[in-house]
Amino acid sequence: MKYLFTNLIGSFVFDNQLNLVEEVLFGNLEEYYNKEQAEKKLKQKYKDWKEVPEDKIEKVLSFFKNKNYFSRFYQNHQELTRQKIKESVSADQLIIQTVSNIEELNKVTNLLSKRLREWYSWYLPELGQRFTDHEQFIDLIIKKNKKELLKDLKLNESMGADLNKADVEEIVMLGRQITELYKLKKQHELYLKKMMEWYSPNILELAGVTIGGKLIEMAKSLKRLALLPASTVQLLGAEKALFRHLKSGTPSPKYGIIVNHPLIQKAKKQDKGKAARTLADKLSLCARLDFFKGEFKAPEYKKELEERVL
Amino acid sequence: MKYLFTNLIGSFVFDNQLNLVEEVLFGNLEEYYNKEQAEKKLKQKYKDWKEVPEDKIEKVLSFFKNKNYFSRFYQNHQELTRQKIKESVSADQLIIQTVSNIEELNKVTNLLSKRLREWYSWYLPELGQRFTDHEQFIDLIIKKNKKELLKDLKLNESMGADLNKADVEEIVMLGRQITELYKLKKQHELYLKKMMEWYSPNILELAGVTIGGKLIEMAKSLKRLALLPASTVQLLGAEKALFRHLKSGTPSPKYGIIVNHPLIQKAKKQDKGKAARTLADKLSLCARLDFFKGEFKAPEYKKELEERVL
Repeated sequence: MKYLFTNLIGSFVFDNQLNLVEEVLFGNLEEYYNKEQAEKKLKQKYKDWKEVPEDKIEKVLSFFKNKNYFSRFYQNHQELTRQKIKESVSADQLIIQTVSNIEELNKVTNLLSKRLREWYSWYLPELGQRFTDHEQFIDLIIKKNKKELLKDLKLNESMGADLNKADVEEIVMLGRQITELYKLKKQHELYLKKMMEWYSPNILELAGVTIGGKLIEMAKSLKRLALLPASTVQLLGAEKALFRHLKSGTPSPKYGIIVNHPLIQKAKKQDKGKAARTLADKLSLCARLDFFKGEFKAPEYKKELEERVL
Repeated sequence: MKYLFTNLIGSFVFDNQLNLVEEVLFGNLEEYYNKEQAEKKLKQKYKDWKEVPEDKIEKVLSFFKNKNYFSRFYQNHQELTRQKIKESVSADQLIIQTVSNIEELNKVTNLLSKRLREWYSWYLPELGQRFTDHEQFIDLIIKKNKKELLKDLKLNESMGADLNKADVEEIVMLGRQITELYKLKKQHELYLKKMMEWYSPNILELAGVTIGGKLIEMAKSLKRLALLPASTVQLLGAEKALFRHLKSGTPSPKYGIIVNHPLIQKAKKQDKGKAARTLADKLSLCARLDFFKGEFKAPEYKKELEERVL
């Protein structure tokens, strides 16, 4: 009777005293992946083979403490880890990273725009009061000088100080930099859309790039999003409100991130909850279609929802 | 007996029944600023003039409810406010705004660099582990491709995934943008230094641009900094620790923002408190010299401090 044992570095045959009878070493990971072949051959040769019983495993393992085996084991193990890590970077990760980065850029442009507004308000406060949209405001201060802006504002004079050209230039430089950040954000959004076009076309079509990307990011992967129940998809992003509800009995949240979806936005107040539920149902279907590479059914769902909700 | 009354719009003489006898209206604010001239003439004409007693003030004021006066009053008042606001933008404000903006840029470049590191670590994690300085790290990923970087790292292979060119480009674009933000920060620092060179040369010389600017920012103006006792200058920026000390009896802080000054950094641990005190003394003198446009004594102080502390 013989014992057959296979690990990362090879297939081994021991006799019942646990002395090595034969070994087939794996030269590389490829051979490890096809270990069944090596095992098959040994099984044919030693017809009376058995698996190592539990009480003898420890002794078998100690056999591999041998230096020769150990360095080989170490090498193959490192190689295997490296491959696993490599494979783990999927479209999911790229989507998640891009979504997070777009959010960070949102935060950053907002912070800097507020600083810019405060700084600029010492020079021409009337402009910031009139134009509350950051991008529009910045565009104006980059392209026009005080005289032109006063004319646009239909004012003869400003409450602001007369700063030197060098002082103003410093402010405008900040404005230019923020504009570049806005451009980068738009570029990232385009890139995200392209990834989703092939990776999750149904989600993209029904949820749009912002909400769709965010759903994948919050679920941590398309796979997990596909496996979540629709009721969880409905509440993704409302975790805080949900726990508050569970803890202190505040009303339970009706929707998470999907609250920003045009269908929910357009629905009448009393219909919003229902709209969220049906939208989440369809989004859940979309995630499954995308994960299992199914058909492109989102346009159909979209039409259906629009008819039902509006 | 006559009453003399002057306000924003003119100088007025009333009889003791409070009927108007004579008025000198101010055509513009210039004339208001030189109101003493108008008053002088009237005082010469009406030798028996008196100020309006308190119990009659109300009646005099109601006299100006007249439409004519009111619109003139409104105009002059608006003009005066506008001028006051304009004058309030001093070098102080520009310095404070610049300091705040440099701090914001510090925060923002840090946030984005961390995002960049995480994103890039899916591609070539070994680089981020080796280079912990953000600017150096970003410089490398902008200028070199994966092959060159692996060679620099003396590695044959990376644990990271093989991303498409388009995926990598998206990450590198973020890197380029962060580099621009670092450049802007340096530009702002240069600008701040130039302002301080003429506005607060002593502070600049002794405290440097970062700590010096921050001291003015925290004091809200050079004037206030000059008026603060040296012991307060020593603790500027340690307000939290100070209040904690007062409230819960934790050890009182020894220094605020000046802890970052090379003199304190270089001092032995047991000497740091004393070094902070002497440095704050000199900084306080510097602020006074700068505010009252005194001599340039900071190099002398600096030498003295270095001899005493080191």
